[in-house]
Amino acid sequence: MLTTETKRIAPPKRLMYGPGPAMVETRAYEAMAQPIVGIFDPYFLEIMKEIQAGLRQAFGTENEKTFMIPGGGSGAMEAAIANFVLPGSKVAIFAAGHFADRITLMAQRQRANVARLERPWGETFSETDAREFIKQERPDVVTFVQAETSTGAYQSGRNITAVAREHGALVIADCVTSLGAMPVELDAIGIDVAFSCSQKGLSCPAGLSPISISPTAWEFLLKRPELPYTWYLDLAIMAKYFEAPHVYHHTPSAPLYYAMHQGLAAIEEEGLRNRWERHRRAGEQLITGVQKLGFEPLVKNPADRIWHLTTLKPPVGLDEVQLRQALLTRYGIEIAGALGQLAGKVVRIGTMGPLASEDSVTFLLDALAACI
Amino acid sequence: MLTTETKRIAPPKRLMYGPGPAMVETRAYEAMAQPIVGIFDPYFLEIMKEIQAGLRQAFGTENEKTFMIPGGGSGAMEAAIANFVLPGSKVAIFAAGHFADRITLMAQRQRANVARLERPWGETFSETDAREFIKQERPDVVTFVQAETSTGAYQSGRNITAVAREHGALVIADCVTSLGAMPVELDAIGIDVAFSCSQKGLSCPAGLSPISISPTAWEFLLKRPELPYTWYLDLAIMAKYFEAPHVYHHTPSAPLYYAMHQGLAAIEEEGLRNRWERHRRAGEQLITGVQKLGFEPLVKNPADRIWHLTTLKPPVGLDEVQLRQALLTRYGIEIAGALGQLAGKVVRIGTMGPLASEDSVTFLLDALAACI
Repeated sequence: MLTTETKRIAPPKRLMYGPGPAMVETRAYEAMAQPIVGIFDPYFLEIMKEIQAGLRQAFGTENEKTFMIPGGGSGAMEAAIANFVLPGSKVAIFAAGHFADRITLMAQRQRANVARLERPWGETFSETDAREFIKQERPDVVTFVQAETSTGAYQSGRNITAVAREHGALVIADCVTSLGAMPVELDAIGIDVAFSCSQKGLSCPAGLSPISISPTAWEFLLKRPELPYTWYLDLAIMAKYFEAPHVYHHTPSAPLYYAMHQGLAAIEEEGLRNRWERHRRAGEQLITGVQKLGFEPLVKNPADRIWHLTTLKPPVGLDEVQLRQALLTRYGIEIAGALGQLAGKVVRIGTMGPLASEDSVTFLLDALAACI
Repeated sequence: MLTTETKRIAPPKRLMYGPGPAMVETRAYEAMAQPIVGIFDPYFLEIMKEIQAGLRQAFGTENEKTFMIPGGGSGAMEAAIANFVLPGSKVAIFAAGHFADRITLMAQRQRANVARLERPWGETFSETDAREFIKQERPDVVTFVQAETSTGAYQSGRNITAVAREHGALVIADCVTSLGAMPVELDAIGIDVAFSCSQKGLSCPAGLSPISISPTAWEFLLKRPELPYTWYLDLAIMAKYFEAPHVYHHTPSAPLYYAMHQGLAAIEEEGLRNRWERHRRAGEQLITGVQKLGFEPLVKNPADRIWHLTTLKPPVGLDEVQLRQALLTRYGIEIAGALGQLAGKVVRIGTMGPLASEDSVTFLLDALAACI
């Protein structure tokens, strides 16, 4: 028995200041209310093509193979790992957070030979780290997390890709939280395979996850000695839906495509660099403000911080669960607790998309001040 | 450059008479325009719980493990195969269509020992078929397609499950097209694992795919000697998000949940059996009407036909591509061609959800008459 009294959807209005799902663009909601069309409808194929163009801009790439996984960000992560990490191959993982651990689990499921360089959560990796680790492990594939959602740490990857390239390793980067809000720049940095999501920097609802694959990585994929264990996420088959003559593979979700089209149109209209700058400023304002309230940033080095996702140790004596509860009930504000070893120790605050503005940050700071 | 002139989503109005994505309920569109909330928000967890209750009704099951795969119907298919078909185990596949072939590919990817009983596309399997095949192969897992979207053939599975049970095999059923529009009845029929989709009998957009798992199958899963190759679709981990204390696994798509809630509410309000009956009548009306126009049903035996998805051989001399083009451009009507060996030989017409009505079928028949 469905018990919601009116049987209609009437959610409470929430201000989504968490790490994602983040606030959705109004125009994305409007788009989702538009009628669906078929998966080979000329209109749908046009929308698809424009999304792919918009994603290339946001990813900073000319990769032809840039498309959308039908599933969540971890589905795109699995697509990257399951296609490019072969059973028995060596994969080197830069690990300083929950999502690097998730990559590790996925690589182990592929029966790969996994090597990890670990750093405390919240830290990043230096070129010396990369050089020693990669020289020692001689991996087939190197993976790193560009924006570690669990810790708030960002690293472009430049330090890592140069060394990986010297050793002929493919580079996979987790760009789940960076895409759309801060520099990703696949081609400039030299990332071969990047995956992301829709519900963070793109200001869309969850469920459709971008992936981009370099020509080098694509060539590797086509030469795999064995097919991947996964059919659903086999990129060689999936890609055929996204290019003429558009072979059926799965049924894409039209409302999610419509929303992503609008999220990307908003980015294009603002300008990607303007958008990055807006997120950078909002992050700085937040850090300055919360420090006055006694919070301490987990990520010590300002240059290593994700602009739009801030991890904070609360002032001594402040219960983070109670704080989050108070924000939710008094202001409809959602911020998040932490994952794994940081659970109970830090809160995670996102200032993304519509909320990456001076007014929105000021409002949040006032609410925080009132709740502590 | 995103080139859509207004940069807004303005799709042509299509009447979705194909095999899916089918016409979406108006209230599902309204629901998707409602604001998202967080993935642990009490409101969201309530919606989730109600969807699970609604799915149990539609599936005809009391399976506690009934939840939603974040992805398409083939993602749910892969979840079923990757979790319950072990490497080296014997899987017996009843194969008479494209989706049985897809199951085969997925089972092969799992390095299973695959046996197929094949029948011409459009046919179903008798109890004698099942008895001989299962007796000979002694499989660990038996799979069949309850509603074969590629051929329009339905079989409840009763013939198969009884025999499978005698031999101690788990039964996996593809219910992608049956759920919500005709009898699925997992518990009465004895199906252990069933998967479906949102964009056919549930009248929702694509992207969120139901799965239901019997206690017997769940026990099997927990005793697997090795973890599945897939982390993203590992049901043992995924299930923990759907039950207290709701452990993070993926970020569910709130708009798709809202839509599915409304699709299921519409079914509950109409009554599942009334809905089946409405789809049955619409299918009969369609068959009677198209036969007068010279079309011939692919599925010979009326009892073997999917009520809401009809496959038709066009009259001699009629080009099915031109027919579909004419319907689309003159009436905004989408019907579909066929897959694989039936491509170019049959068309597929869906009369689902809002289109399973006398008026809608009459309108379609008039349009067909005008276009041939």
